[in-house]
Amino acid sequence: MRMASPTRYRTMWTLLLAAGAALACFSPDAIAQQEGRRRRSGTQEAKPVEITPEQLAQLTKIANDRKLNVDDLLAAAKTFMPSGRHDEYVLFSSGGQSGQVFAIGIPSMRLLRSIAVFTPESWQGYGFAGDKDPIRESLKINGKPVEWGDTHHPALSETKGDYDGEFLFIGDKANARLGVIDLRDWDCKQVVKNPLTISDHGAAFVTPNTDYVIEGGQYGTVLGYGYALPEDYKKSYRGMVTMWKFDRAKGRIDESQSFALELPPYWQDLADAGKLASDGWFFINSFNTEMATGGVEKGSPPFEAGASKRDMDYLHIIDWKKAEAAFKAGKAEKVNGFPLLKLATLVEEGILHFAPEPKSPHGVDVTPDGKYMVVAGKLDPHVTVYSIERIKKAIAEKKFSSKDEYGVPVLDFDAVREAQVELGLGPLHTQFDDKGYAYTSLFLDSAVARWSLGGETAKKAPEGDWKLVQKTPVQYNIGHLCAAEGDTVSPDGNFLVSMSKWSVDRFLTTGPLLPQNFQLLDIVQSGTTMPVIYDSPIGVGEPHYCQMIRADKLKTWKVYPEVGWDPHKQMLSPDAPKKGDEGVTREGNKVLVKMTAVRSHFKPEHVEVNEGDVITWRITAMETAQDATHGFCIGGYNVNLSLEPGEYTEFTFTADRAGTYPYYCTEFCSALHLEMMGYLHVKPKGNAAVPAKDADHVAASK
Amino acid sequence: MRMASPTRYRTMWTLLLAAGAALACFSPDAIAQQEGRRRRSGTQEAKPVEITPEQLAQLTKIANDRKLNVDDLLAAAKTFMPSGRHDEYVLFSSGGQSGQVFAIGIPSMRLLRSIAVFTPESWQGYGFAGDKDPIRESLKINGKPVEWGDTHHPALSETKGDYDGEFLFIGDKANARLGVIDLRDWDCKQVVKNPLTISDHGAAFVTPNTDYVIEGGQYGTVLGYGYALPEDYKKSYRGMVTMWKFDRAKGRIDESQSFALELPPYWQDLADAGKLASDGWFFINSFNTEMATGGVEKGSPPFEAGASKRDMDYLHIIDWKKAEAAFKAGKAEKVNGFPLLKLATLVEEGILHFAPEPKSPHGVDVTPDGKYMVVAGKLDPHVTVYSIERIKKAIAEKKFSSKDEYGVPVLDFDAVREAQVELGLGPLHTQFDDKGYAYTSLFLDSAVARWSLGGETAKKAPEGDWKLVQKTPVQYNIGHLCAAEGDTVSPDGNFLVSMSKWSVDRFLTTGPLLPQNFQLLDIVQSGTTMPVIYDSPIGVGEPHYCQMIRADKLKTWKVYPEVGWDPHKQMLSPDAPKKGDEGVTREGNKVLVKMTAVRSHFKPEHVEVNEGDVITWRITAMETAQDATHGFCIGGYNVNLSLEPGEYTEFTFTADRAGTYPYYCTEFCSALHLEMMGYLHVKPKGNAAVPAKDADHVAASK
Repeated sequence: MRMASPTRYRTMWTLLLAAGAALACFSPDAIAQQEGRRRRSGTQEAKPVEITPEQLAQLTKIANDRKLNVDDLLAAAKTFMPSGRHDEYVLFSSGGQSGQVFAIGIPSMRLLRSIAVFTPESWQGYGFAGDKDPIRESLKINGKPVEWGDTHHPALSETKGDYDGEFLFIGDKANARLGVIDLRDWDCKQVVKNPLTISDHGAAFVTPNTDYVIEGGQYGTVLGYGYALPEDYKKSYRGMVTMWKFDRAKGRIDESQSFALELPPYWQDLADAGKLASDGWFFINSFNTEMATGGVEKGSPPFEAGASKRDMDYLHIIDWKKAEAAFKAGKAEKVNGFPLLKLATLVEEGILHFAPEPKSPHGVDVTPDGKYMVVAGKLDPHVTVYSIERIKKAIAEKKFSSKDEYGVPVLDFDAVREAQVELGLGPLHTQFDDKGYAYTSLFLDSAVARWSLGGETAKKAPEGDWKLVQKTPVQYNIGHLCAAEGDTVSPDGNFLVSMSKWSVDRFLTTGPLLPQNFQLLDIVQSGTTMPVIYDSPIGVGEPHYCQMIRADKLKTWKVYPEVGWDPHKQMLSPDAPKKGDEGVTREGNKVLVKMTAVRSHFKPEHVEVNEGDVITWRITAMETAQDATHGFCIGGYNVNLSLEPGEYTEFTFTADRAGTYPYYCTEFCSALHLEMMGYLHVKPKGNAAVPAKDADHVAASK
Repeated sequence: MRMASPTRYRTMWTLLLAAGAALACFSPDAIAQQEGRRRRSGTQEAKPVEITPEQLAQLTKIANDRKLNVDDLLAAAKTFMPSGRHDEYVLFSSGGQSGQVFAIGIPSMRLLRSIAVFTPESWQGYGFAGDKDPIRESLKINGKPVEWGDTHHPALSETKGDYDGEFLFIGDKANARLGVIDLRDWDCKQVVKNPLTISDHGAAFVTPNTDYVIEGGQYGTVLGYGYALPEDYKKSYRGMVTMWKFDRAKGRIDESQSFALELPPYWQDLADAGKLASDGWFFINSFNTEMATGGVEKGSPPFEAGASKRDMDYLHIIDWKKAEAAFKAGKAEKVNGFPLLKLATLVEEGILHFAPEPKSPHGVDVTPDGKYMVVAGKLDPHVTVYSIERIKKAIAEKKFSSKDEYGVPVLDFDAVREAQVELGLGPLHTQFDDKGYAYTSLFLDSAVARWSLGGETAKKAPEGDWKLVQKTPVQYNIGHLCAAEGDTVSPDGNFLVSMSKWSVDRFLTTGPLLPQNFQLLDIVQSGTTMPVIYDSPIGVGEPHYCQMIRADKLKTWKVYPEVGWDPHKQMLSPDAPKKGDEGVTREGNKVLVKMTAVRSHFKPEHVEVNEGDVITWRITAMETAQDATHGFCIGGYNVNLSLEPGEYTEFTFTADRAGTYPYYCTEFCSALHLEMMGYLHVKPKGNAAVPAKDADHVAASK
């Protein structure tokens, strides 16, 4: 057997380490060249497949070995993505109590990325940039850290009612906050806290040109973080909806131009903005118009029963252009510093009307043409369809059946109702396709119902108006559902995802805490079946709603536009250290570290400070190649950053613990990644020159 | 068109809400019954599939529409899991800088669950249980929160060198910690911090019966959190390896029976424990035996060059039974309160020997029979194979070529080396199958190499001893790899996962931060190809290593064994509120809340306290059905819990902000989930009876 001389490869490694060579060797360009022969592009011209008898035998054998039937093989062929082939859609999903957003490729259902929003996440370095991490700071509520969110409803930014792929908004139900994600770099840029309410629900939904991001409330509270006991419920508790003004050029919500509408203390639920025929309006469901206050501990009926007594609740119909005008005319009052249009003003100005809706509805969804609002009452087996024309007419003609306890006019049900369609048990939410069908989730039936639109709908299904067409069982307890671009003015009618809340036996048992189950349905072949073609466990949080956008609408950056880019400000930073700038300077006890990171070293590799110094540390990632990400952590100091190609980061901390701390690159960046490190030397106070107490361990044998 | 009367369904909902009925309707048993007709079991007896000409045409059409070739169809058939079918293996993967562990099903590559370990995670409620969350407390280092980890190497517990499916250990490189996960409930039970070193790397690895969990170091530091400048490197810096004693009955590391070994300040890298023929030993690679100290900022060569100068580094060969005996004989000294066997002792007792190994190795992996140690030097295109028999003989015969600078005997390379096999550029890590093959990752080649074992290996491949058999390209830059049970005494030789570090163009661009790429290779058909059959993006952290266990070895609980179970103590808690116990009691400013949670209400639904009260809040989840999980959050108070079936939780916080705070169930538990809520009323100080300032918003129109 031939033995390798240990010195045989010396020349090669010397070369590898020589200037430039190491970089070139690991660069994506070099990799791309090297991989060219096996790379596949999404646009390749493939020869038509012909399956030979031997190949068919091979396929049949695998199917039999794995106990797959022909439907399974068809489903596999519909969802499998060969290496390097890109998914057609991105599903942006709420991450539920994880506080994050998940991006999932369709049809493969692969989790492409988690995006940290309300909960610090160390891979992305969100919340781990020193003592005064600006994003972590923004998570404080009344001065206290509230570092998680219950993300419910993501909303893609829209232009003329269609997803434009620029921004994504997401609501935090638990703490009434909104996160703003820039889809150029898939990074959370802003978290805003609602000053009126503690928790919310109907957030986020956008108006058709993303002028406003709507945040609806849920549980009645004393607006402005007030206090009142349940016996004062009707008097002191209120609901609200907030219209956050979005500044698209800045990519930020403009809090100074935002305002809220006071609502009765019913529990407002989901909202949807009108579009086209209903542009200028939005709609919010409500439940607990009983204003039940629970109290099972005192023998009262629990909320679940008390809030379900009445047969009808109220669809809130809001003319938001009028609301905007009233706000601009100075008709809002400040509560906890935030402008609020009071209920009386809403009534006076004709901003708010109610329509009766079957009890305890959950979803209200506007059809693609904007003509109809579909309300699904979870305790009524029908969907109820309202017409915007009928609503406008009823308002103009003042066809009110009553006023509610707070003086809000209630439109006559028969005047505004267009249709009711019986679908099954527990209907919740509705999405649409391009062929005249609607799709409604049935929670109690564990099914997706397909039904035909009717009336003035432009595109009509052959089954006739307002008819249940078919149902597909899902596993289990579907909440929201999401069709491809299924809540825009132009749905694609392609795939549909069932957000099944319970998975029970669908996957391997993962302890008492189980994943949810996202199931992909093929809804392309209208009139035929719409089978489940993939089950995908979601074991990183319980998502609530998601939106599915065509991947080619996204204009994502592959790397930051210039080296030294500040992602918080989305601009080149004048503070970003350049090559040659690196070093450590001091003024009093303030130390400034200027560092660059490039494969495979940080410069400087040693930083010497004194215990108690306040360090400002600036790093520029000098890389320009896609995927050449570095990380930077200081062990023991709770610092971890993701340094993406071109990114500039600054963080500040106090070196309050003496010792010699390794820092290192936390992203595997090259073959010499482990060598990409250095030391932070924090000299102990009052013991300047001497190594620390336990330093001297030299072996006696030496 | 028929209109539904809003009252038509009243009777049904009254029934639904009646005692018990609501529960029964939503219980998994009821669902299971209801779903029976469409449910599929993993063990069903399927009829052999025969694909008809029409079905073949349908399949071919899908393939052509989606531009799939026949290999794609075969790969799809090998990896697709029909709804309800369970994966064969679970891949427990490090979650990299996310601080978590990911559990992935094989062959579907679906992420089944993330398990929070070092980073608070709000879905699982880890770290969100009040001001003094016990787990969050354990994340403090020297009194400061360090709330993330760089998880590197998971280790499944073993019995006789085989995975037993009971526990999982995971190391935090950034902060030198170990996490202990109980695989009955997939929950992190313990985090231990190494008192000697700030960061580590070679953790965790277990001895064949999990007597010890091994934590190897990496970057030289001054042991015990000491301080020294680089000019004192050789004198003051050291490496270390720690042997943590595991108490299997308690399911905890026993810190009082654990100890460490002082090592020279080379950078120790990965470790592996011997087994069978090499039981009683473990092995650690090292690099930077140059003891380079970098200093690129001063014009010195950076670490990446300085640490790669010498042609050979040192394989550390450790007789751990002798080390244990020396520790038990009181030969350890305390450093920062932790027992350390000094280098001199290791030399005197014959505990530590070195063997030369080609420069800058990364992985050392012991063959299934324990006879050989495979070392892959990332800067040498060979793997180098050492024989335990040769090592034992060389030690016995004192075949030393030299001593190192610290007096450690260096065994003669030719005496201990069994073989060297040239594989390609950048070999890192090796796994094994059941047919006599080894599989090594090639980082620079972006490939997996299959090669034959030789010598005394029991099972031999037909290609003859120590021969490269073939390579499969992967995309891109593979780090670790993992074969089915591939580092145990009995590998399965089934699937192999390439942990490709860069994905570059493989998936849709997800911003400048890209996912990693786990690629599944089919290695079943020995001697033929071993194609990549699935690409899986990992967009929630950068994993380092993983282990793949047969799913049927896991004995996971579906729900907690009894209602009132404390998962921290893994026992029924006497403190768990029972049905009828609920209520709020007070002693001075200390308030005790006893609550139960059951579909679909909490009891009590109102909790009244005073501003400044210290609240202890106890909740029992009364559910016993699988997947009937509740959540519990208090908006604005940074509390979120996952209340799994039967689970008991206690948390404590100070009600330091007045107001009326909704609490609610954060897991979608039933159709009346939104109604599962209540209010925490925190009465403002000094203003006992009056509603807070902004409470009075009753509309003037009323």
